[in-house]
Amino acid sequence: MSRLYATYHLSCDAAAIAARAQALALEQSIECPLEAVPEPAILDEIVARVDDITKLAPGRFAVRLALAAVTAPPEPGQLINMLFGNSSLQDDIALVDVEWPQDYLAAFGGPRLGIAGLRQRCGAHGRALTASALKPQGLAPAALADLAGTLARSGIDLIKDDHGIADQAYSPFAARVSAVSRAVAEANAARGGHTLYAPNLSGSLDDLRRQLDLARAAGAAAVLVAPMIVGLASFHALVREAEGLAVIAHPALAGAARIAPPLLLGKLFRLLGADATVFPHSGGRFGYSAATCRQLADAARAPWPPLQPCLPVPAGGMSVDRVPELLACYGEDVMLLIGGSLLSARDRLGAAAAQFVAAVAEHGAAHQAHNED
Amino acid sequence: MSRLYATYHLSCDAAAIAARAQALALEQSIECPLEAVPEPAILDEIVARVDDITKLAPGRFAVRLALAAVTAPPEPGQLINMLFGNSSLQDDIALVDVEWPQDYLAAFGGPRLGIAGLRQRCGAHGRALTASALKPQGLAPAALADLAGTLARSGIDLIKDDHGIADQAYSPFAARVSAVSRAVAEANAARGGHTLYAPNLSGSLDDLRRQLDLARAAGAAAVLVAPMIVGLASFHALVREAEGLAVIAHPALAGAARIAPPLLLGKLFRLLGADATVFPHSGGRFGYSAATCRQLADAARAPWPPLQPCLPVPAGGMSVDRVPELLACYGEDVMLLIGGSLLSARDRLGAAAAQFVAAVAEHGAAHQAHNED
Repeated sequence: MSRLYATYHLSCDAAAIAARAQALALEQSIECPLEAVPEPAILDEIVARVDDITKLAPGRFAVRLALAAVTAPPEPGQLINMLFGNSSLQDDIALVDVEWPQDYLAAFGGPRLGIAGLRQRCGAHGRALTASALKPQGLAPAALADLAGTLARSGIDLIKDDHGIADQAYSPFAARVSAVSRAVAEANAARGGHTLYAPNLSGSLDDLRRQLDLARAAGAAAVLVAPMIVGLASFHALVREAEGLAVIAHPALAGAARIAPPLLLGKLFRLLGADATVFPHSGGRFGYSAATCRQLADAARAPWPPLQPCLPVPAGGMSVDRVPELLACYGEDVMLLIGGSLLSARDRLGAAAAQFVAAVAEHGAAHQAHNED
Repeated sequence: MSRLYATYHLSCDAAAIAARAQALALEQSIECPLEAVPEPAILDEIVARVDDITKLAPGRFAVRLALAAVTAPPEPGQLINMLFGNSSLQDDIALVDVEWPQDYLAAFGGPRLGIAGLRQRCGAHGRALTASALKPQGLAPAALADLAGTLARSGIDLIKDDHGIADQAYSPFAARVSAVSRAVAEANAARGGHTLYAPNLSGSLDDLRRQLDLARAAGAAAVLVAPMIVGLASFHALVREAEGLAVIAHPALAGAARIAPPLLLGKLFRLLGADATVFPHSGGRFGYSAATCRQLADAARAPWPPLQPCLPVPAGGMSVDRVPELLACYGEDVMLLIGGSLLSARDRLGAAAAQFVAAVAEHGAAHQAHNED
């Protein structure tokens, strides 16, 4: 019988860990005492089993559960519900890893373009990819389009909306996406470039669909979505309908402490179809450690057949002077996202963006030369 | 200009709190340095302002931000994005309270039935309401319908699916909802009762709509939805389409530590239209303190014109012997939810449920007599 394996880290006295692990198994499967189970088959086939308990440190344990796949069929909401629905309400536990049966991979499908598809769309080979963001919130479509044109002429591979830009009165979605797409297309035509624009989609699935149609009609080649804000099920539904467009996942509302970032932003967003996943690199404005960031990148792009790899996009307060450090950390299969620090150059934005593009290209060339030696 | 007021608790050195609060204001509005802002109007009208900083304890502060309403129009996803999207990625900060401008209340709408409507539907006046859950996961529709019939004949006001019961092979949604609804209707007809059945809806908005149609066709009088799993925008879209049905919010995936439970499960779910909100009572299987539970109940049902009050539903490992304590804590405007401990009675389920119903009725009668003295 098919099982999912979920690993949790939790705090507990050593004397109580066996009972706590068993309680966790009940919470994440039948959510009631064993004596309330009227049918023996449910004990065998439905109740989660404690597969392993490993001591991590005094009072800290890893518990691995075998969850019955039949309780969590491949629907994204029900999957996360059975993995962490109720246990998320306990404040000393984190969900840190999941292993899925092979048939889930086919059922969810993973990235459509993946790293290879993104590279091909951007014409970016043998080097890391570059990205920037349209900010600040509050600019009108024409001003955002000006910024996008400047960034595209500098050769940035991907330009995304700031994730706070939605469908506000000062920058309505349709007008913004149309103006920005046109500016990027003109820049691409002028220099023979391949810059992609990813408008930020938000709202209910109805809203997401309307916005996807508008983005496609405007010629946008990608979309940005925050799966934890729109809901995992809506995210996956959108991925299925976004054929031909690159889907970039944003980490908003993904929290820091309760679902391990490598699992949530790496594995799970990849499983559901993100072609690229944005996350805060260590040493910026957020709290992820360097080790967490590397694990996240590994989860996003390590071999996981038949799923395509998902491109890691470290971000969150990066600047051009950190490019060598970032590439030393992640290698070339990465997209570097620098937003605010480029935009702070104001009138010199084009030069600053070109410097960013050149730094990444040079590192890639040096890397290739080194490999050919 | 209209502003939302959001209060965060965070850890910070006293010497650095002013700068940290200002960084938080930028993170939750323009998400870039002030020097990247090209238009003075954005500084006045878009950038969040630090409205207040209060020391809570050494190294612990409350920061109140005034966020520009125009950045977060009344769309549930964008609202939570601007309140806590990026800051959720910092692990020392929690969102603890929000004050909305009056026009948001009308735009979101709040509960349709509210406490008065639920009481009227259940014919429950002058006492607390009772609820139980259909478990365990793994039972077929006929077995779940048997349980529901027994609970309804005992006079339980609301019977809900276990939140882990979705659309699994062993209990497909359509077959289950049809069988359970019929059993509840027969019990209601036999005893002149008014028990409501709330099937659990899950999946994408498409799935939710299909399930809502099936629930309505089967005669179900309520629905159970986990807003943090389906996404706040899908939850609100569903509320708008569920006219005539009571909407019960489930806390799955709502976490414990990063958005204060009284804000998320009390205020926000109420604002978006939950008629009742389920949450773990202290002393059960989860970590909420008694004070948190009381604040949550207050947030759900305190006067907040023009919004109707939302019925608090403490749950999570309760038993009949705790009824007096629960009612002493919450008063009569509450629905007590006891699931697993009733179901553990197995063949004596009907008697155990009747004892639960009687305990709540007696407390209500004593309360009324006391008030009439």
